[in-house]
Amino acid sequence: MAVTLKDIAKKANVSVATVSMVLNDKPGSRISERKRKEIKEIAEKLNYVPNQSARTLVMNKSMTIGMIIPDLENAFFSSLAKQVEDLFRKQGYAVVIVNSNDSFDTDIELIELLASRSMDGILYAPGNESFKDAEKITELFKRYRIPVVFVDRVFGSEFSSVSFDNYSGSYIATEYALSLGHHKIAYISSGRESINGMNRFRGYCKALIDYGIDVKKELIYEGSFHHESGYLAVDDLLKYEPSTLITSNDMVAYGAMKRLKELGLDIPNDMSIIGYDNLMFSDILDVPLTSVEQDVVLLAYETVDLLMKVMEDIDYIENIVLTPKLIKKESVKILTD
Amino acid sequence: MAVTLKDIAKKANVSVATVSMVLNDKPGSRISERKRKEIKEIAEKLNYVPNQSARTLVMNKSMTIGMIIPDLENAFFSSLAKQVEDLFRKQGYAVVIVNSNDSFDTDIELIELLASRSMDGILYAPGNESFKDAEKITELFKRYRIPVVFVDRVFGSEFSSVSFDNYSGSYIATEYALSLGHHKIAYISSGRESINGMNRFRGYCKALIDYGIDVKKELIYEGSFHHESGYLAVDDLLKYEPSTLITSNDMVAYGAMKRLKELGLDIPNDMSIIGYDNLMFSDILDVPLTSVEQDVVLLAYETVDLLMKVMEDIDYIENIVLTPKLIKKESVKILTD
Repeated sequence: MAVTLKDIAKKANVSVATVSMVLNDKPGSRISERKRKEIKEIAEKLNYVPNQSARTLVMNKSMTIGMIIPDLENAFFSSLAKQVEDLFRKQGYAVVIVNSNDSFDTDIELIELLASRSMDGILYAPGNESFKDAEKITELFKRYRIPVVFVDRVFGSEFSSVSFDNYSGSYIATEYALSLGHHKIAYISSGRESINGMNRFRGYCKALIDYGIDVKKELIYEGSFHHESGYLAVDDLLKYEPSTLITSNDMVAYGAMKRLKELGLDIPNDMSIIGYDNLMFSDILDVPLTSVEQDVVLLAYETVDLLMKVMEDIDYIENIVLTPKLIKKESVKILTD
Repeated sequence: MAVTLKDIAKKANVSVATVSMVLNDKPGSRISERKRKEIKEIAEKLNYVPNQSARTLVMNKSMTIGMIIPDLENAFFSSLAKQVEDLFRKQGYAVVIVNSNDSFDTDIELIELLASRSMDGILYAPGNESFKDAEKITELFKRYRIPVVFVDRVFGSEFSSVSFDNYSGSYIATEYALSLGHHKIAYISSGRESINGMNRFRGYCKALIDYGIDVKKELIYEGSFHHESGYLAVDDLLKYEPSTLITSNDMVAYGAMKRLKELGLDIPNDMSIIGYDNLMFSDILDVPLTSVEQDVVLLAYETVDLLMKVMEDIDYIENIVLTPKLIKKESVKILTD
């Protein structure tokens, strides 16, 4: 059993309140220096461990940040969590990470868990499911009055947020292929579940339109963020002879590349391909993948900085949108015709 | 400002203790049913949120598990954390994850953080650095008397643990290559920092010895767990003409494969290769990689089950060692000479 203040009080023959005051270094003229020393020695001898729960109640600061992410296995989020943790550690904060599995119910539970455990602030990347009932979550944060910053996925502008411009990410990827002479550009979309995925798709469409090219239904494959969907898309799309595949993330691009190789097609000579995320693997591949990079280090930096501001003034609102960058590698061919 | 018990007490014209008893559903004959109802209604009207810190003190159970992992960006650990979280959620527990960056000092800090925040139990995968001062950490856990299970990386048998037999993993990988007629088998080691890496290396040596083959220094490249070390190892090892490369993990194998392809060498015709971890990427590659699989789902299951036992009886000790499995794919050639 853990040693309690009561055990120490009994040994020292004083009240629990006195022990608490001494161990929390609160002044109190009625306690002699000798008694203070004695109490501290007893606590040490009994291996007393201050209970953070009790302490939090007194000090009103937990020096702990809660972070809710939708998918721990997604390299983008695990990397973000790691960077955020590094930055907060330097400020003296610990970060506890919880995973929602993209579930609305779990998001609700986790917000309640973190809020009720006296986090000083919360970083929240909403689950895809939670966009369907954004209002309920918004209400919850308002009710708890806890400093929060939305990260990567954003509901609106009622709370501070840091995110990437997904629309412009796919726009520049598509524009790049167009600028190299490609006209028949296929798109493997992530489906309708993700708001970021939808924005990427919109960027692709807008770039085509701006260059006077029709968006053709047969060149769009509705997939998911998983690599199987890239693998499956290839046979479907090849019928319509695109010269480039633009994908909603690198994982999907890897799946497509695998299928292209199986079919004996060369990248980029027979087919160009562009990914999104610029994961580390995109450099390990035999044909390094041109990909839209979302700078996770920058995202982490801005997010931590913004949450620090909100923790100082809970009514401070800022919505930061970061610009992604196209990293050009060998997977896109220059068309000379 | 958050609503406190004091606010409710004032409105209801009762003591804070009475409000606390009512809201925590403690019996107390001196409080009338009418008064109880009134207090609950006031709490609801004021949007009172029970403070978990206060609640933990009363109920002595937080329904929260802490998990310390050494590297969030390592796919093995992020996948383990996700599985563990799924399983505990089904039992009604939330899991908070913290990242040590393989640092001893951070491990100490995080153990203290979790212990002082009234976790019901801790899952601990020690940082590599922490093996140098295992005793200090062991002492800390003893002092806190908190239920703990070591996972994947193990100090000794003083605490419950679930881990894989790394020694036998590399043993079966090496034995497999030997059984297909390979004699000159090179090894890319992870270096001396990781105890699991050292055990994998020992398994390789023992298999060679058991098959009457000398362990040759020039066929061993001392690298790391990162893919660059696989890339760099190839040129060094090729001088001695091995027919197989055994690596300490898949990432290292990917690095080696990239370099082999750059040199125009075919896998497996010019060089066989075996990885460790059987990551998802090992199937996406054009030549799927034969690799030692550590079943993360099984590891998560055993770990959660064991921690539940330790939470019931803190003196319960069991050390579970799981056996890895070789997943045979196309990256190893049958030598017919």
